[in-house]
Amino acid sequence: MTATSVPDDVDPTLEPDVFSRDCASRPVLQNATSRWGLLALVALGDGELRFNALRRRVDGVSERMLSSTLQSLERDGFVNRTVLQAIPPRVEYSLTDLGAEVADRLAGLIELVEGRLPEVRKAQDDYDAR
Amino acid sequence: MTATSVPDDVDPTLEPDVFSRDCASRPVLQNATSRWGLLALVALGDGELRFNALRRRVDGVSERMLSSTLQSLERDGFVNRTVLQAIPPRVEYSLTDLGAEVADRLAGLIELVEGRLPEVRKAQDDYDAR
Repeated sequence: MTATSVPDDVDPTLEPDVFSRDCASRPVLQNATSRWGLLALVALGDGELRFNALRRRVDGVSERMLSSTLQSLERDGFVNRTVLQAIPPRVEYSLTDLGAEVADRLAGLIELVEGRLPEVRKAQDDYDAR
Repeated sequence: MTATSVPDDVDPTLEPDVFSRDCASRPVLQNATSRWGLLALVALGDGELRFNALRRRVDGVSERMLSSTLQSLERDGFVNRTVLQAIPPRVEYSLTDLGAEVADRLAGLIELVEGRLPEVRKAQDDYDAR
């Protein structure tokens, strides 16, 4: 018997291709780059956080949206949810190894866009002035 | 008189911070990482394309959604729209320098997620079986 990581319902000869409409990578990318998914991943890239601390960091997110975002990220294997034995119990969120790699790339994207924001604003002004 | 790229309504001493709810980088990142924005940018990373060719590449996108996606990307300075003198006129889309840098980073993210999809699927199966 050999171990395999390919699920039974997937043709193992097919490589994932995000440009195909049914590719399983599309919803995973959507979760990771959603408005709140992206910020939660990058915030957790600085270290584990409890729910309320994460919510303060991701300014503007509602409790419900953050909760649903974290559930998607946990399901996709990007985020660990750990319940700590304490009174009252504490829940901490941290990145998995895969989540950390994704967060690294997202942080690079954010840094690029933040650094080039004057250029973006100029393009927007030019576009709007047409 | 000196040229400046900082708009009048922005405090030039403030660095962009995507974690602030009003940061102008948030909508820009959202456009670039939206379901169709991400795919359009990465598709154009392989070279300029006419609208219909781009639509075939980004499998599943509607004409209306692709058109609106391209408008946002053009407004943010990521995509050039060029009308070629021909009968009938042809419209080509290509990446700006900034768009190419963003597309590079998005392509890296896609490659990572596609390559680790078996790991993601396993996490999803484990989560769903709880």
